[in-house]
Amino acid sequence: MKLATLKNGRPDGQLVVVSSDRLRTVSASRIAPTLQAALDDWAEVSPALSALYDQLNAGEIAGQMFDSALCLAPLPRAFQWIDGAGYLSHLERVRSLKGSKDAELQSARPLMYQGGSDSLSAPMAPITVTDETLAIDFEAEVAAILGPVPMGADHATATAAIRLLTVCNDVSLRRLVVDDLQNGFGFFHAKPSTAFAPLVVTLDEFGNAWRDNRLHLRVQTLINDAVFGQPNAGVDMHFDFADLIVEAARTRDLGAGTIIGSGTVSNRHDEGLPTKKGGIGFACIAEARTVEKLKYGRARTPFLKSGDRIRIAAIDSDGSPVFGQIDQIVTIRGDASA
Amino acid sequence: MKLATLKNGRPDGQLVVVSSDRLRTVSASRIAPTLQAALDDWAEVSPALSALYDQLNAGEIAGQMFDSALCLAPLPRAFQWIDGAGYLSHLERVRSLKGSKDAELQSARPLMYQGGSDSLSAPMAPITVTDETLAIDFEAEVAAILGPVPMGADHATATAAIRLLTVCNDVSLRRLVVDDLQNGFGFFHAKPSTAFAPLVVTLDEFGNAWRDNRLHLRVQTLINDAVFGQPNAGVDMHFDFADLIVEAARTRDLGAGTIIGSGTVSNRHDEGLPTKKGGIGFACIAEARTVEKLKYGRARTPFLKSGDRIRIAAIDSDGSPVFGQIDQIVTIRGDASA
Repeated sequence: MKLATLKNGRPDGQLVVVSSDRLRTVSASRIAPTLQAALDDWAEVSPALSALYDQLNAGEIAGQMFDSALCLAPLPRAFQWIDGAGYLSHLERVRSLKGSKDAELQSARPLMYQGGSDSLSAPMAPITVTDETLAIDFEAEVAAILGPVPMGADHATATAAIRLLTVCNDVSLRRLVVDDLQNGFGFFHAKPSTAFAPLVVTLDEFGNAWRDNRLHLRVQTLINDAVFGQPNAGVDMHFDFADLIVEAARTRDLGAGTIIGSGTVSNRHDEGLPTKKGGIGFACIAEARTVEKLKYGRARTPFLKSGDRIRIAAIDSDGSPVFGQIDQIVTIRGDASA
Repeated sequence: MKLATLKNGRPDGQLVVVSSDRLRTVSASRIAPTLQAALDDWAEVSPALSALYDQLNAGEIAGQMFDSALCLAPLPRAFQWIDGAGYLSHLERVRSLKGSKDAELQSARPLMYQGGSDSLSAPMAPITVTDETLAIDFEAEVAAILGPVPMGADHATATAAIRLLTVCNDVSLRRLVVDDLQNGFGFFHAKPSTAFAPLVVTLDEFGNAWRDNRLHLRVQTLINDAVFGQPNAGVDMHFDFADLIVEAARTRDLGAGTIIGSGTVSNRHDEGLPTKKGGIGFACIAEARTVEKLKYGRARTPFLKSGDRIRIAAIDSDGSPVFGQIDQIVTIRGDASA
């Protein structure tokens, strides 16, 4: 089934079920008021949500038109957002950037960081930054939303805890990455609010595209109407979602509603072909710049600037955006501290 | 006023008001079901909570006996837990430990890390660790719970956002700190669930002990019945709470219910006097070990082991624990992944 969270003037919004064709929606508030409430009692709540989804799909309920502009992030605030690093080629490319840590990659265990989760951005919320010169970048990722995971969980337990999938934009301020990492306390200022697609979707909807704990779909990013990248999230994901969850739960329990990111989707391709001719491109600007530096001696692709539009969607075999679309405009809040 | 969260079988527990003498309690559920709900609508909710507090204190409501053993953490799960580093002497001592980063201290801006907030420990919950050899340490801190803070907030706005104070135990696995920091993505596995005192208290309760955005009270830690440390949280706090909040909000908004930690309380004293003779001691074991290494050539104080009991409380001028007491036993979950 497909779920979303609509704006209702409250911080956690209102849970709705969305039809399989993403055209209609119906309130789920008689079953669970919010997505977090549904995840807290998933075993009891999900059959009722699923029945409502079936009724909506069968036309037994008319519902209302679904509009992404009315959506908050599926979890507008979450109790945990962990971003993993499943794709090693992303790390390799980004870490070779000037100023970044060039420590040897750990391929035995995935890296991950604790992200801020108190205000996750709606799919059509602006990317608000105080300063255009901070090297504003996007990172297109797949994200899994989890049920509770006990400390020390094994791979099978981790696999069973995956409830829902979506895509997200882990907005990054590259100029602050170096400071954050050199401070030694990890990402903080470099990672403002992460944005999420409007829809979260249960695993049964993906058929064979969900296998081996990986989502085998292209994650397409457009910058100002041009395709910037379309790597396949199922390809070159060295650590699958269960690997990431096992690592996250090494020393602690993970609460219901924990969101875990795949890391920036990244394929190990040779970068010859432009995306308009079917080339793969990149799911963040930093990777493109690294490859350009190696190839041309200097980075050509600029970071995002005020007014730039960025759209991210996972595309299924029909060409449809299975989670709907992230659609953000970069906005500079010039005098925030004035 | 004083507030607490009682166990009720639900993840967020039940909000209660606690009498000023910490002996009696009454449900606040007709006003707000949970502390997060109260913080979401603080302007409307806090006068009603305050009136209930007055009634309880005046004996107009009998209430029930208050028992810390029935408490969850005031926010059993929070949307954000940020740990600052307000006391530079803590950083100096800990960073000189073998294996830690010995980068120059930044005194211009406070360091902070994003902590896991999905499962915060009750005041009397065990410290559960999978392996006794991980160098289990405590960190006694003051924590502030905030209303919403806009991105780019100034010092005055940050000051006005402080709603409640408490103390916490930022449990740390020192052997994993090095790995976490070397990975470059910041603290993760080294920081399992943080524990909180039973009570959160509004600023008006502290009189002159809350001034300059610092809590001028001793934070006392006992390990197995012996006083281990009693530094004054108002002394040598280089970055005050508003400084920490300003820094945390540099590139993003902070949601209502954000918890921000002072960092391990640490005074710049000479370490001659034992705590039983009124000496200050330390609010974590790592600092004690550093000082011992310099003084004796080797660390004498062991890290915590299975069965050790640790108690943390902020002590007011009457000798009372203003937030109640954190009282935890170290427990090893030997075969968690078996």
